Amino acid sequence: MSQSSPSAVANIGVVGLAVMGSNLARNLASRDGNTVAVYNRSPGRTRALVADHPEAGFVASESIEAFAASLAKPRTAIVMVQAGAGTDAVIAQLADLFEEGDIVVDGGNANFHDTIRRERELRERGLNFVGAGISGGEEGALKGPSIMPGGSAEAYATLGPILASIAAVAEGEPCVTHVGTDGAGHFVKMIHNGIEYADMQLIAESYDLLSRVAGHDVEAIADVFAAWNEGDLESYLIEITAEVLRQRDAATGRPLVDVIVDEAGSKGTGVWTVQNAVGLGVPVGGIAEAVFARAVSSKPEQRAAVQATISQRPQPAAPGDGFEDDVRAALYASKVVAYAQGFDAIVAGAREYGWEIDLGAIAKIWRAGCIIRARFLNRIAEAYERNPRLATLLEDPYFAAAVRDGEAAWRRIVAVAAQSGVPAPGFSSALAYYDSLASPRLPAALVQAQRDFFGAHTYRRVDRAGTFHTLWSGDRSEERVAD
Amino acid sequence: MSQSSPSAVANIGVVGLAVMGSNLARNLASRDGNTVAVYNRSPGRTRALVADHPEAGFVASESIEAFAASLAKPRTAIVMVQAGAGTDAVIAQLADLFEEGDIVVDGGNANFHDTIRRERELRERGLNFVGAGISGGEEGALKGPSIMPGGSAEAYATLGPILASIAAVAEGEPCVTHVGTDGAGHFVKMIHNGIEYADMQLIAESYDLLSRVAGHDVEAIADVFAAWNEGDLESYLIEITAEVLRQRDAATGRPLVDVIVDEAGSKGTGVWTVQNAVGLGVPVGGIAEAVFARAVSSKPEQRAAVQATISQRPQPAAPGDGFEDDVRAALYASKVVAYAQGFDAIVAGAREYGWEIDLGAIAKIWRAGCIIRARFLNRIAEAYERNPRLATLLEDPYFAAAVRDGEAAWRRIVAVAAQSGVPAPGFSSALAYYDSLASPRLPAALVQAQRDFFGAHTYRRVDRAGTFHTLWSGDRSEERVAD
Repeated sequence: MSQSSPSAVANIGVVGLAVMGSNLARNLASRDGNTVAVYNRSPGRTRALVADHPEAGFVASESIEAFAASLAKPRTAIVMVQAGAGTDAVIAQLADLFEEGDIVVDGGNANFHDTIRRERELRERGLNFVGAGISGGEEGALKGPSIMPGGSAEAYATLGPILASIAAVAEGEPCVTHVGTDGAGHFVKMIHNGIEYADMQLIAESYDLLSRVAGHDVEAIADVFAAWNEGDLESYLIEITAEVLRQRDAATGRPLVDVIVDEAGSKGTGVWTVQNAVGLGVPVGGIAEAVFARAVSSKPEQRAAVQATISQRPQPAAPGDGFEDDVRAALYASKVVAYAQGFDAIVAGAREYGWEIDLGAIAKIWRAGCIIRARFLNRIAEAYERNPRLATLLEDPYFAAAVRDGEAAWRRIVAVAAQSGVPAPGFSSALAYYDSLASPRLPAALVQAQRDFFGAHTYRRVDRAGTFHTLWSGDRSEERVAD
Repeated sequence: MSQSSPSAVANIGVVGLAVMGSNLARNLASRDGNTVAVYNRSPGRTRALVADHPEAGFVASESIEAFAASLAKPRTAIVMVQAGAGTDAVIAQLADLFEEGDIVVDGGNANFHDTIRRERELRERGLNFVGAGISGGEEGALKGPSIMPGGSAEAYATLGPILASIAAVAEGEPCVTHVGTDGAGHFVKMIHNGIEYADMQLIAESYDLLSRVAGHDVEAIADVFAAWNEGDLESYLIEITAEVLRQRDAATGRPLVDVIVDEAGSKGTGVWTVQNAVGLGVPVGGIAEAVFARAVSSKPEQRAAVQATISQRPQPAAPGDGFEDDVRAALYASKVVAYAQGFDAIVAGAREYGWEIDLGAIAKIWRAGCIIRARFLNRIAEAYERNPRLATLLEDPYFAAAVRDGEAAWRRIVAVAAQSGVPAPGFSSALAYYDSLASPRLPAALVQAQRDFFGAHTYRRVDRAGTFHTLWSGDRSEERVAD
């Protein structure tokens, strides 16, 4: 390995100084022992960052060559540019300048398939490539994100302590772990975002039921969420829900939520989660219904067309005593299901792509820094501590009891939502999933018989081994087609 | 264009003589005007087909060169081999032997992305490539399938009449149409299969409710489906459901459905439908929940693990008067939703890939031959005749009325299923979708506000144009970030 040049003073560099990159660089610079090199394609942004933050002691470069030369060996650079072609271009530049053992980190929201490809390409050139999911938004990047790095163990030996120095801290532990090789980090970040979609959808359904069935005004619902944030549901998303609902629009004096167009956007990681999970054979209804709910909200023409056909909407059902508690229980049980499905997707991804992923460690690094941070994740970490080989989170005694305790309320809420015309796709999909797992016998047997009828897809029998086919268009006798 | 050789006597050829290919070749040979060339990689299968069916007058070849030489110009060959690498290999062989203007047809269940690629590759060599979805299983191939060809209009001019000669016939019209260019046919076939998943899942949920809530025995449920097949629900899948439920297992004397293992398999087109639809931004909960229901049924370890945590399952709710009619109404309304979603996916695919697809024509070619054939498809064809630019099928007066008429029953069934612990993900997802479209205001506004809070994703306002952001971590004033 060649020696660093005398000017190579930085132990870590950041390429791409938009908000996320700037904040990450400032976070790095604020920790003892870090000297941070920075580079941005347009130098104005670099100069502004350096001028605004003299305390950071940045080593700034206006060419990527100078940037590379400013890094001590093994050179370690975190790329914070737009996912896609931009990332590929910067990686190619760094790969040409870096030498064996140096480390390129992609801290953007890359598709993990790209990360697997990039890791392979750089490894073939003797370089380390680490795809690292970083969650927590702009504020997390500055004050402590949750970080999900993949890549080689060798790279993590150098990179891990640096990332640990800037990560969020939960109960004394930094929210970073070596997730697994190559694309494991970005895969887990993708699932994190998918779970985030589900979490947000379940909160939205709770809000809608409290509004349209219980008839609460926005202020009162803010109080409900604030109260929930004192209990098992304590989490960043519940907390900010209360804050959002308390926000008044200055122009109209109305609650801000009431003046916002009710069309939810998305940036793609929810879609990726569904595409990959369904391809891996993992049912993720909680996440899929959340993605679909955003999509349907963003079809104003379809919504207007259907509403034009309607003369009368159903009356809201009577909320009944303890309605708020019922909604809370339904939210918690549905959340357990969404997380169980998300962790199943991680297990399936690990099997498919050859990663060794410690599920308990994932739960732990999600306890702080990231959008889905929640008290709840301690429960998940404990569950995998009790039994790292859970067939499903729902099997764990704590979660089994949590669902059982909330079950009656959950059923009431799904029923009331259906009767009231309030869409609750997240609650109802989660309940149907639970009931599917809990039913000793499913009508899938009928589906399999239909498949055998029209496509000779065969079936198995409950009473003996083998694969069978009924001669449906013949004499309807049964033949054994395989052992 | 070169002349055909004197031995080139066949106007159509079939490559790949497994059951689907053999049956399609026999079907072709049975129609006036067709002379059918056949070829299979292992000649034993070719010889057996010819020996078993002397009436067909097959022109058999034992090499692909001889097969190509036996076809009159423009040579037209339908490839019926396993999707994937096998298809690519045969196409490559034919492409080397075929000449400008000749036509290679892939009649397998190809992924439409592959079809787009293959069409481009062959077009660059002056050849026509047609990806044709063929539905109806083995019996359909023999007696008349529903055929969904893509490819160029030029190729369809030659191929269309041949396909029309073997297609199923619905109300005097052959079930084949030129769907659109390149991969349009296989795309629409994929959506057909996705809808088939939804149809089967809704039937399975109906069966489960009639069994577990109403307490009917299998024989009685067979009668219910047989009766439904006399009304609006008349369809192949309802018909075979009654037949499957009537089937007794010879070994045990029990209903066959009760001795079949309740784990439903799948072959991938449902997964493709969900992956592509979600990527196109189309909510297809009806199809996704069907794919997920099969997946969850096939997780025996998770099912056993959850069941081991349960001491008591909910009692079935009282079915109430008219329960069977309620189930029928819920099934019909949910089916309308699933088809509306499927047709939305076709619209989105057409827009994305530049196809001009006549939705009414698609409904018409699904009226016979294919697995989802149903009286219902006449209603869809009529709807698109009334208005080819429907924003959603649910907007059409017939379907709007159908949903309205069944709405109260649909709500009761979703509520009863939730209360009874009977999973009804298809019914409940469809109802939530309908309620999302029908609700004048959705909690998506809260989701968008949350996104603005943690990710500065901005929002629009109901009262003026522009894109806005609240300075959540600042003084919480609002800024306009774009016009």
